[in-house]
Amino acid sequence: MADFSAIATQFVSHYYTTFDADRTQLAALYREGSMLTFQSSQSLGAASIAEKLANLPFQKVKHQIGALDAQPTPTGGIVILVTGHLLVDEEQNPLAYSQFFHLAQDAAQSWFVQNDIFLLA
Amino acid sequence: MADFSAIATQFVSHYYTTFDADRTQLAALYREGSMLTFQSSQSLGAASIAEKLANLPFQKVKHQIGALDAQPTPTGGIVILVTGHLLVDEEQNPLAYSQFFHLAQDAAQSWFVQNDIFLLA
Repeated sequence: MADFSAIATQFVSHYYTTFDADRTQLAALYREGSMLTFQSSQSLGAASIAEKLANLPFQKVKHQIGALDAQPTPTGGIVILVTGHLLVDEEQNPLAYSQFFHLAQDAAQSWFVQNDIFLLA
Repeated sequence: MADFSAIATQFVSHYYTTFDADRTQLAALYREGSMLTFQSSQSLGAASIAEKLANLPFQKVKHQIGALDAQPTPTGGIVILVTGHLLVDEEQNPLAYSQFFHLAQDAAQSWFVQNDIFLLA
């Protein structure tokens, strides 16, 4: 998988663009067995994760990626660590965050998020 | 794997205690196929990773864990995201960092680091 780095960069760009434009659309990136841990709050499965993301306590949000590194896994997945800042609503001070994604491919070879851990720094 | 969270906490504590005491001992936690990406610099395999860690440009280091979350993976592994601060040598200002670990079990059921990504925040 020589292009894991390109897939990771493309995925993360798509993820945050979607998050900032209409985060209800992120449901399409998760599957039944996907896990999200958001500031230690755990959600299992696309429906539950979509509900968690939709109900986060802000309307407007803008992510700015600081750094990103990725690696392949022995089972054909890709693990990604992202650090960055986000601005919510009318807040002037960006919040530093870290996010981890484990991407896997479904039967149709589409990439989806198997594991997702988000922490404010 | 009900105890993935306990294994993750125990591993991370052991990892940073070893790192801060004598980081040449960390080689035992990696295997031939392990990957480390340290500030975008890639190392493959326990020997190469141990060399990278040993040659980091500081003598004394102290990690302080801020937050830690973990999840199991479908293949029996554990993924961990850690945020924290580190102090190196005589530096007074702690540096914020994020680190991701993917733990797997070898044939002897010992946990080792399959994937490791470190980023200064």
